[in-house]
Amino acid sequence: MRIAILGVGLIGGSIGLAVRERLGAEVAGFDPADGVLDTALQVGALDRAAPDAPAALAGAEAAFVAAPVGALPGAIGAALAAAGDDCVVSDVGSTKRSVVEAVRDERFIGGHPLAGAENAGVRHARAELFDGATWYLTPTASTRGTLYERLHRLLSGLGARPAALDAETHDRMLATVSHLPHVLANVLVAQAARALSEEASLGTKRPGGDASAGDEHRAERWRGEAGRLPATGPSFRDITRVAGANTAIWRDIYLANADALIGAIDDATARLAAVRGALAAGDATAIAAWNDAAREDRRRLLEADLAGGTVAELRVSVPNRPGVVAEVALALGRGGINILDMALHPAPDRSSGYIVLWIAGADRAAQAEALVAGLGLPVARA
Amino acid sequence: MRIAILGVGLIGGSIGLAVRERLGAEVAGFDPADGVLDTALQVGALDRAAPDAPAALAGAEAAFVAAPVGALPGAIGAALAAAGDDCVVSDVGSTKRSVVEAVRDERFIGGHPLAGAENAGVRHARAELFDGATWYLTPTASTRGTLYERLHRLLSGLGARPAALDAETHDRMLATVSHLPHVLANVLVAQAARALSEEASLGTKRPGGDASAGDEHRAERWRGEAGRLPATGPSFRDITRVAGANTAIWRDIYLANADALIGAIDDATARLAAVRGALAAGDATAIAAWNDAAREDRRRLLEADLAGGTVAELRVSVPNRPGVVAEVALALGRGGINILDMALHPAPDRSSGYIVLWIAGADRAAQAEALVAGLGLPVARA
Repeated sequence: MRIAILGVGLIGGSIGLAVRERLGAEVAGFDPADGVLDTALQVGALDRAAPDAPAALAGAEAAFVAAPVGALPGAIGAALAAAGDDCVVSDVGSTKRSVVEAVRDERFIGGHPLAGAENAGVRHARAELFDGATWYLTPTASTRGTLYERLHRLLSGLGARPAALDAETHDRMLATVSHLPHVLANVLVAQAARALSEEASLGTKRPGGDASAGDEHRAERWRGEAGRLPATGPSFRDITRVAGANTAIWRDIYLANADALIGAIDDATARLAAVRGALAAGDATAIAAWNDAAREDRRRLLEADLAGGTVAELRVSVPNRPGVVAEVALALGRGGINILDMALHPAPDRSSGYIVLWIAGADRAAQAEALVAGLGLPVARA
Repeated sequence: MRIAILGVGLIGGSIGLAVRERLGAEVAGFDPADGVLDTALQVGALDRAAPDAPAALAGAEAAFVAAPVGALPGAIGAALAAAGDDCVVSDVGSTKRSVVEAVRDERFIGGHPLAGAENAGVRHARAELFDGATWYLTPTASTRGTLYERLHRLLSGLGARPAALDAETHDRMLATVSHLPHVLANVLVAQAARALSEEASLGTKRPGGDASAGDEHRAERWRGEAGRLPATGPSFRDITRVAGANTAIWRDIYLANADALIGAIDDATARLAAVRGALAAGDATAIAAWNDAAREDRRRLLEADLAGGTVAELRVSVPNRPGVVAEVALALGRGGINILDMALHPAPDRSSGYIVLWIAGADRAAQAEALVAGLGLPVARA
C-alpha cells in the first residue's frame, strides 16, 4: 500500500513510522518547512521525500493531511485535487466541523487521533504513538463506504481504535474533554503564578512585624533577580501539564471551536457557582455528595478508555446505498462501541453486500447488534 | 531519637518508615482504627504499637499528628497535654489556619507535606514518599526556636524540603495550587460524564435520520446495561486524576479553607469570563497572547519545584528572643528560598547565639543574606 503524508510533524511522522513498520506500507511525504523531510527520512518516517503535495500523492491509496487546523480546508482541497479517484484522504485536526463543512468529497473522511499532544516535531515521532488510542472519524452521508473501510482497517492496523462520530458531536465532546481542560490549565497556571508571586514577594504577616518599605524593596529584588516561586507539588504539575500548549496549534483549535468551547465554559462556570454556594453555606453534606459523584464519574470515564474482553463477530447485510457504512459506524460510535476491525464485501453486481464487524466484549456485541438492527439492517452474530 | 506518630495512614506510616530507615529513630505509633497498627508493624513503619496516644508519646522528642483536618485541633491538644516539655508536636493537615488558631503552645508547629495525595492507608506507605517534596511549616512568634530547628533537621533528614510560611499565606496559596485544582477536576469529570452520556445515548444527527423513539429506547438500554462512555484521551486522564479524592479527607479540607477557596473560585471565574470574551470576539491576538503567557507561567512554576545548584552557608547572629528562628525561616520561606539544613547554636548564657543556614544556589544565598539583613540581624557568608 502506498501512503501520502502531507505535513510531517509528530503526528504525520508517527503515522509514517507505524504504517511502514506494521503494515509494510510505502510512504511518501511532503512538508513545506525547511529540514523537516531530511529529519523524517533519518528517523525512518518516510520512504521518499516529495518536492510537493502532488508528487507525494502520486499512486497513493490513502493520504493524511497533518497541517494546523486553520490551514486544513485549503490543504485538504489541494490534496483532493491532486489525489486519484481511489485515494482516501483524511486529516488529523482537533476540530472537525470547519473541515467537514468546507470539504465535500466522497473520498474525504475527517479524522482526529487522541494522541500526541506534547513535543511537536518529527524528531519525537514514534510508531507506538497511537497504540490503543481512540481515533475519531467523521464520515458523512456522502462518504464512499469502501474508502471508509480502508481507512478504518489502516488505522486499526497501526494500533489505533477508530470510532465514528458526526463532526458536530465530535466538536462539542472535544470542547468538554480537551479544549476546556486546556483552558482551565491555562487559567490555573496564570492564577497560581500571580498568587504565588504576590505571596512570595510581598508577604502578608510575619511574627514581629508588618509589611514595610524593606519588604517592598525585597519584592522588587525577588522579581527582578530570581523570579522563582514557591513549590506547588505533583498534583498541580499533573493538572497543568497541558498549560500553554503550542500556540500555533491551539490558537486555531480554540477559535475553530469557539462556540462549543464557550458553551463548555458557561457550563463549568455554572458548576463552579454551585460549589461556591455549598462552600459559602458550609454545607458538608452537599460537598461530600458532590465529591462522591465526581469519583463515580471519574470511574466511568476511565472504564470507557479501557478495552473490552472477548471479541465477537457481527455480519450486517447492507444495500448499495451511499452513506450506509458511515451510518453503521456512526450508530456504533455514538453508542461508545469499539469496532476492532471491519471488512466490507460488496456482491459482484454491487447492488448489495455485507459488512463484517469485530466488536470487543460480548455485552457490547449484543448492544451493537441491537443498534444495527435499529437502523433497519439485517444482522447476525457469527 | 524517639518519634511518636498519632494516626498511621499513608503519611504517618511513610514518616515512620523514613525516620526509621534514614535517621535510625525509634518509632511508636497509635491509631484508633482496627487493624491499622498490625499492618503498620508488618510494613515496618513502627517499632512499637501503642494502646493510646499518651503511651505513644512517652519519651518522644518529636510527634506527628496525622488525623483528618476536622479532627486535628482536638487531637493536637490531646497530644500536647500528654507530650513532654521538650517534645516538638507537628501535624500534616492540608489547611493550617484552623489548627494554628486553635493551638497556642510553644511546642507546636503546624506542618503540611506536599506529597501522598493518592492511595490512602499505611499499606501504601513508603520511605521515599517525601524525597524532594516541599514540606510547609507554619511557626509563629511563640514557637520555641530549638524545637523549630529540631523539626526542620528531622524533615530534611527524611528527604523533604521544609519551607516556612505563615498559616494564612499557606492557606491562600494552597487554595490556588491545590484546593482549586481539585474543585476544577471534580467539575470537569462531572461535566464530561454528563456531556458524553448525552452524546452517546441520544446522539444528535446521523446521515439519513433524526433522533427517533428508537434512539430513545437505545439510550435507556445504553445507560441501563452498559454505562460506558466514549474515550477521553490521556490529557483528560492527567487533568482529572485527583477528581473525587477521598471524601473523608477532602470534605474537611474544602470546608476548613472555604473562604480562601471561594476567593480562588471567584478569581478563576473572572479569568474564564475574560477568555470567553476573547473567544466570542474571535480575537486571535488575545488568545495567542493568553496562551503564550500561560506557557511562561508554567515554566516559572516548574522551575520553582526544582532544586538549585551549589550550596552556600550563612551564619546569622540572633538575640535570645522568642520567635526569632521562626522570623528568619518565614522571611526565607516567603522569598521562595530552600533552606537545605539549619543548626542553632545558643551561647552558653543563652542570651544570644547564631543560626547556621545552608542554602542551595549562590544567587539564592545572596538573596537570603539580603533578606536576613533586612530583618536587622547580622549575617555573614562562610
